[in-house]
Amino acid sequence: LWRVLETSASSLSSGPRLEARGEQDVTIMVALGFGFINSSLRRYGWSSVAFNLFLLALVVQWAVLLDGFLEQLSPKKVVIKLSSIKLATMSAMSVLISAGAVLGKTNLVQLVLMALVEVTAFDVMRMIQRKYFLKDNHVNMMHIHVFAAYFGLMVAWRFRRPLHERVMEKDQTAKSSSLFGMLGTLFLWIFWPSFNSALLLDSPNERKNAMFNTYYALAVSAVTAISVSSLAHPQGKINMNHIHNAVLAGGVAVGASCYLISSPWLAMVLGLTAGLISTGGALCLPMYFNHVLGIHDTGGVYYTFGLPGLLGEIAHIVNCGLYTQWNTTWINHQLLLDIGALSLAMAMGLIIGLLTGLVLNLKIWRGPHVSKYFDDQAFWEFPHLAVGF
Amino acid sequence: LWRVLETSASSLSSGPRLEARGEQDVTIMVALGFGFINSSLRRYGWSSVAFNLFLLALVVQWAVLLDGFLEQLSPKKVVIKLSSIKLATMSAMSVLISAGAVLGKTNLVQLVLMALVEVTAFDVMRMIQRKYFLKDNHVNMMHIHVFAAYFGLMVAWRFRRPLHERVMEKDQTAKSSSLFGMLGTLFLWIFWPSFNSALLLDSPNERKNAMFNTYYALAVSAVTAISVSSLAHPQGKINMNHIHNAVLAGGVAVGASCYLISSPWLAMVLGLTAGLISTGGALCLPMYFNHVLGIHDTGGVYYTFGLPGLLGEIAHIVNCGLYTQWNTTWINHQLLLDIGALSLAMAMGLIIGLLTGLVLNLKIWRGPHVSKYFDDQAFWEFPHLAVGF
Amino acid sequence: LWRVLETSASSLSSGPRLEARGEQDVTIMVALGFGFINSSLRRYGWSSVAFNLFLLALVVQWAVLLDGFLEQLSPKKVVIKLSSIKLATMSAMSVLISAGAVLGKTNLVQLVLMALVEVTAFDVMRMIQRKYFLKDNHVNMMHIHVFAAYFGLMVAWRFRRPLHERVMEKDQTAKSSSLFGMLGTLFLWIFWPSFNSALLLDSPNERKNAMFNTYYALAVSAVTAISVSSLAHPQGKINMNHIHNAVLAGGVAVGASCYLISSPWLAMVLGLTAGLISTGGALCLPMYFNHVLGIHDTGGVYYTFGLPGLLGEIAHIVNCGLYTQWNTTWINHQLLLDIGALSLAMAMGLIIGLLTGLVLNLKIWRGPHVSKYFDDQAFWEFPHLAVGF
Repeated sequence: LWRVLETSASSLSSGPRLEARGEQDVTIMVALGFGFINSSLRRYGWSSVAFNLFLLALVVQWAVLLDGFLEQLSPKKVVIKLSSIKLATMSAMSVLISAGAVLGKTNLVQLVLMALVEVTAFDVMRMIQRKYFLKDNHVNMMHIHVFAAYFGLMVAWRFRRPLHERVMEKDQTAKSSSLFGMLGTLFLWIFWPSFNSALLLDSPNERKNAMFNTYYALAVSAVTAISVSSLAHPQGKINMNHIHNAVLAGGVAVGASCYLISSPWLAMVLGLTAGLISTGGALCLPMYFNHVLGIHDTGGVYYTFGLPGLLGEIAHIVNCGLYTQWNTTWINHQLLLDIGALSLAMAMGLIIGLLTGLVLNLKIWRGPHVSKYFDDQAFWEFPHLAVGF
Repeated sequence: LWRVLETSASSLSSGPRLEARGEQDVTIMVALGFGFINSSLRRYGWSSVAFNLFLLALVVQWAVLLDGFLEQLSPKKVVIKLSSIKLATMSAMSVLISAGAVLGKTNLVQLVLMALVEVTAFDVMRMIQRKYFLKDNHVNMMHIHVFAAYFGLMVAWRFRRPLHERVMEKDQTAKSSSLFGMLGTLFLWIFWPSFNSALLLDSPNERKNAMFNTYYALAVSAVTAISVSSLAHPQGKINMNHIHNAVLAGGVAVGASCYLISSPWLAMVLGLTAGLISTGGALCLPMYFNHVLGIHDTGGVYYTFGLPGLLGEIAHIVNCGLYTQWNTTWINHQLLLDIGALSLAMAMGLIIGLLTGLVLNLKIWRGPHVSKYFDDQAFWEFPHLAVGF
Repeated sequence: LWRVLETSASSLSSGPRLEARGEQDVTIMVALGFGFINSSLRRYGWSSVAFNLFLLALVVQWAVLLDGFLEQLSPKKVVIKLSSIKLATMSAMSVLISAGAVLGKTNLVQLVLMALVEVTAFDVMRMIQRKYFLKDNHVNMMHIHVFAAYFGLMVAWRFRRPLHERVMEKDQTAKSSSLFGMLGTLFLWIFWPSFNSALLLDSPNERKNAMFNTYYALAVSAVTAISVSSLAHPQGKINMNHIHNAVLAGGVAVGASCYLISSPWLAMVLGLTAGLISTGGALCLPMYFNHVLGIHDTGGVYYTFGLPGLLGEIAHIVNCGLYTQWNTTWINHQLLLDIGALSLAMAMGLIIGLLTGLVLNLKIWRGPHVSKYFDDQAFWEFPHLAVGF
């Protein structure tokens, strides 16, 4: 079918170098940022970094093909452009977000299966949004946070098991691993403006606005996260896990509407709200999730990406409403499309996540036993078992 | 007053992408470089990285507003350009340099207070230099090293306390932390040419010269630092602390005059001198500072930024003199302005640093007790106190 | 002789900024990537990172001068362009590759000597290829992998000693060091497309093709390396050392022909083959090398760069043959030139490596005793000997 897969060298002569640059920023963010942000688990650093690279390399190849199929009409020939890699890398991010929720509870085969299902579902969702909800690439890509968070949570829900105390101990951070986690966070923090503006290729103004607002929202949410974490503790001590996650909430929240916002104050308010929600979530939700719902969200995906993403989508809907206020019918129609697109993302995330979780729970995949959760030793050959940290 | 804060999208249509790129390089340098270069303290890695991010995010927002006020005339409206963020990030660097001298001896509230005072003083100094000493942005920004080093030393001087041996032990490096420190150093080393050329936007030639000369000076000072450190030890052993700091001295020293120097030999000689001064300082000064002056300069700010910065300013004055030798009166006038600007930077650094140090020493800030110096445990919630490294 | 060393500011007015960017990518790759990829040795992290920086800074300066001499005709004046630094950094990479094979077995003086000899030999080889074999800069630069691997192996061969068990123990990885190694690998992985396309400045199309194909080959070899490593182990456990090296084999193998390959499938097949060869080599060769040949290849240089590089050169010869199939005589002539150039690279690597190894083994250099192999303590001043990890 796609025997004649070609790179369209000539079609992109306008700015191959800038293209390549944008692609590289996203690759740095995904490979280094997501690789290290979850490496703060005490005994799971190797797996989180290496599995992240494996999933990224695999999913990008699959997503490039998939994008080619879903976007192009001629069924015999898939033309690959340099921008395809950028788009595929961004789609692959959905997998890396969800993987944070099931981190340490699955083996590599289960992760690969989840990755292929998720990125396919995500790309199909994006195609539906493009065709039937008239959302352009930037807007439909920004549903990634909501989609991936709910997908990951549903999979994690099917992996609920009573965790022994010895296992829970491994689900903690250590001094040196936490610095690696911080390294990942910083890479994400620095390159998030590139991510939010990567698909706004048409208008340099929108692109600049997007970078600017994302930068501002990130700065505010970093300050908020650290302050709130310190104020919430009786002795003013800060919790490292809050920092890892809540620092990024501003970038997530501002994602959908970053090109629309005209005043930095709005971006700052969004960043502040996102920081509050995210730190608040990190303070309260784990207890609730663990004990009531039985979901163990290892990487804090729900309050890092889920809630701020939801906030961002709502902000985008409000912003679009304010931006195009010249015609009530048009607004109503637009509003319906926006709400429909968001519901589609949530629904597909929840349902396909649940189905994937059910399938992954089958015995045939031989997932790790609950006593081996969060442990590198299940997957890695160590020189000597006794070699310390 | 500044209710109508707007991003000036249209005013920068020439090269928004290149702008954004330069801004990103500086952010990488400041967030990753300064974040990790001081993380080599054995028990203070978390604080140095996270407090660095907090100060950066906070100060950039403040400095953007401040720049708007000080630069623009219309008092009701502050126009923010993408280049404002770059300028603000570079101003924020003054805080991060000074923070190295008081590292581990203050709490977050004290640091925030210091940061706001320092960046305000620095921006006022730059405005005075621009208006009354006719120094353009590049030249007045390069006084950052001298200003920040003296500011930091003065604050550190007010925090002099007799340090117990148990505390001194913590003021040391460990194997793994030192690699993180090296990571920070490498980021600074790689992106220093971007920093030195970031404000030379008018002339591509000057910009290229600046990059080139900075690269050369850095290469020479890296070789010098490692060789001298090895030769100074009876058994030829290298001291990691010398490397962390002295490797960068070349970039600091060449900063002010990097766009003027026409021959790489001059840049190399500057790099060599800076490397020698910096390694020599690291060998001799700590003893003297600790015992005679009672200043405990945790991050070695004085011989990393202070002395090489001073050397760089003198080299700049000499270079300017050689460059414009056609008229004696003009030289004399120019010389007076140059020396005046340098004196202003040093005087403001010393005086405002001293005042800040006095204020920060008040009991009301509840700074950490001397026994808690250099210890993450005063500021961070650890999962279990007993979790090892 | 070269008293009038000047930077040719005007000759590059076309795109100084893009130039600077390409230069920076290569510097990141070389300083951070090669610095950290070998830091996974348990007790040798400091040395591998710092010696890497030292060699880089020294060799770049030497290579810039050397390039000036070998390329230009006017003997009195060496013009330095910004692209000279890029070329010099890439030449310096040959030293950093070879240094991986003798890692932990030499002192700094020996390394410096080796570096100066190697980069001189490499630049002379490149000049011969350019003049007599009519190979352009991209093609002759890509012989770096084969040249540097054989050079390094020959030097390592002269350093063969019976290693005690206690020493062998140090030649192992540890948890936290391995994450640093992974960091280096990821930097190399991300910036390898920039490296492979850095010298294809004439045609944006070739440049884009090169990036694209390198990216694809790297993605496939990453997936291959991790899968094969897991499948080869009876319990499916992955070996971290395989990952560090084999992940990059695709980029090495596709290097020479990356601008020619027109279909991603070919790049993927090359990446797959390289991944298989490299992981296979890592599984079988160390035993054979250690016991039969007596070569202890610390960094796995032979199967990371040597074998994939050889594969890449053969692929390039085949590709060139297919590409220019209109004239048999021409092909034959071209083929002879290609094979001649490859043989030259291998022969010069082997012979000069052997000679260098002989010279370095002289007593006068006072290399570390075999019991001090792979140990930072021979070269670094530690605060206290007893400070843990």
